[in-house]
Amino acid sequence: MLFQKTNPHGGDIYGGTVKLDFSANTNPFGTPKGIIDAVRECLPQMHRYPDPYCRELVAAIADHEQVPQSSILCGNGAAELIYAFAQAVRPKTAMELAPTFSEYALGLERTHCHIERHFLRKENNFAVGEDILAAVAEKSPEAVFVCNPNNPTGQLAGEEILTKLAQLCREKNIWLFVDECFLDLTDEGKSLKSCLPENPRLVILRAFTKSYGMAGVRLGYCMSANPHLLAEMSAAVQPWNVSSLAQAAGVAALKESAFLEKTKVIIRQQRKYLTDELEKQGFWVCPSRANFILFQGPENLGERLADMGIAIRSCDNYQGLEKGWYRTAVRLPEENKMLMEAIRQTAERK
Amino acid sequence: MLFQKTNPHGGDIYGGTVKLDFSANTNPFGTPKGIIDAVRECLPQMHRYPDPYCRELVAAIADHEQVPQSSILCGNGAAELIYAFAQAVRPKTAMELAPTFSEYALGLERTHCHIERHFLRKENNFAVGEDILAAVAEKSPEAVFVCNPNNPTGQLAGEEILTKLAQLCREKNIWLFVDECFLDLTDEGKSLKSCLPENPRLVILRAFTKSYGMAGVRLGYCMSANPHLLAEMSAAVQPWNVSSLAQAAGVAALKESAFLEKTKVIIRQQRKYLTDELEKQGFWVCPSRANFILFQGPENLGERLADMGIAIRSCDNYQGLEKGWYRTAVRLPEENKMLMEAIRQTAERK
Repeated sequence: MLFQKTNPHGGDIYGGTVKLDFSANTNPFGTPKGIIDAVRECLPQMHRYPDPYCRELVAAIADHEQVPQSSILCGNGAAELIYAFAQAVRPKTAMELAPTFSEYALGLERTHCHIERHFLRKENNFAVGEDILAAVAEKSPEAVFVCNPNNPTGQLAGEEILTKLAQLCREKNIWLFVDECFLDLTDEGKSLKSCLPENPRLVILRAFTKSYGMAGVRLGYCMSANPHLLAEMSAAVQPWNVSSLAQAAGVAALKESAFLEKTKVIIRQQRKYLTDELEKQGFWVCPSRANFILFQGPENLGERLADMGIAIRSCDNYQGLEKGWYRTAVRLPEENKMLMEAIRQTAERK
Repeated sequence: MLFQKTNPHGGDIYGGTVKLDFSANTNPFGTPKGIIDAVRECLPQMHRYPDPYCRELVAAIADHEQVPQSSILCGNGAAELIYAFAQAVRPKTAMELAPTFSEYALGLERTHCHIERHFLRKENNFAVGEDILAAVAEKSPEAVFVCNPNNPTGQLAGEEILTKLAQLCREKNIWLFVDECFLDLTDEGKSLKSCLPENPRLVILRAFTKSYGMAGVRLGYCMSANPHLLAEMSAAVQPWNVSSLAQAAGVAALKESAFLEKTKVIIRQQRKYLTDELEKQGFWVCPSRANFILFQGPENLGERLADMGIAIRSCDNYQGLEKGWYRTAVRLPEENKMLMEAIRQTAERK
């Protein structure tokens, strides 16, 4: 089959024989029953066009986030809003972290944006340091993209650095796009949304995909106190971009705070288990605060695991990483044990 | 509530008190059970990312349409593919019919395209005539958009004219974008897809939305024998644009040929009923071959019906139409009777 596109991401388990998928960073508990029930209940109405304004969902998000409804725009997955932002702003220059989620650059390349990269270093555990402020001040790009926690490193940017960065960007009229899609599954992560009212150049991206096990349904949103930006982003996508099933799922998801808490407990425990076990294998492991872990192992580890029906995310197509870098999702205890058992087997067979 | 976008279309029944919706042109029978069942069955898998390549769906469409898999690209509703085409081709000039579906122009305006309009005339029943060939030859736009059957007129372009137009566009290297989203619900409509192999400038748009009562799920596709175009269009949208629920729904829909036949019978009967009844009211009615009817009535008809909880599509925001033009969907006998009864009441109250 000839494919029109190349998918650089994890989670594509449809072409092969994946039995255990650690390549996608979604909630290990899957989808809560409340969300599945909500989608099932709206199936009889699927012949109707979705609400183009996502009225009920926007009201629920506004209530949940404690931001005005006019500051919210929903998308067909968070990824759509990255492309919509790039189309709306069309920055000529932008800066992103490296490594980071590749969709910012892919979205920006559509508008022929020149992309500067702020390289994070292994010796600093890939942490975002104060030096990002100097880099932004020096290069003065039109837009800065920060993923927090960063994908694939799992590192959280410090609140103080981010606040300073937001201030700097506001002073210099630089767009600051902060992707908080994995923030809900961290313990310490704090949203930058308190800076929204005073900063019309700040955009915050959130997703339902990962936290609530809704990747197949597609739903994300962004927050900005800039109505002109949101109007432009909205005009860049078609009128019915969010399906009625996704809208129902989103409203139901925001009632699932207990599910989220339960997930955070298991992530915290199991992230420690996986980190310890991977280090016992002699791998370098990036200290993660998220539901996934970046580590450096043997170059052929991914292929060997694939032969055993296990998918992890090879990270050699991330800027700044090479062959031998991998990302694994933190999943349920029995799954994580199976992953480690499989990794031990690959080591023994060497 | 401040809305970031303005929705110029019908089917937005979420803001008010619509009891009967004739403003959206979807299948009057709703969604067939086979599709609802298929979506319900994949709900337990909704935590997974969708197949970014829509492998099973593309294979099913290729089989159904008898075109190569490499000629198919799926979208989050047909509307997404209009925007993707505009982004991929970025024509500086384009020609469309008037009146016609407004999303072509909205998508094209994103890339600052100059839009020429080929105005259709009431005295010709808004039919697309041979004069479109001369207009295209004279203006030589970079792209031509034809909606067949045309929305809102319900008129089919003649096969001979379309074939000549395709030939002309091929000779002059003009993109020809043919929207066949409502074709499945016509009796006589014939797809232009047989011209695809010889014409790399031809793109044909299809939707599941209307024919199979799936507007809430969002699914459309386009066909083109031009792999470079499809690759560019694919790059213009995010990787997981088609939800897993939509993919499952699409595969199931293609097995619903009996449902489609049943729909065509009722559309044919009821279109005649509505046409006759609207003419009895003294309205000018455009002869339609589709599942909707354009007519000219009193300027306040839409408002009066809205007061009674009935939505029809006011067409005064279509290029070339003014206040008093309306489009109604052809629905089930009892619903159509209620519409006509309501229209008679508005006349009596004058």
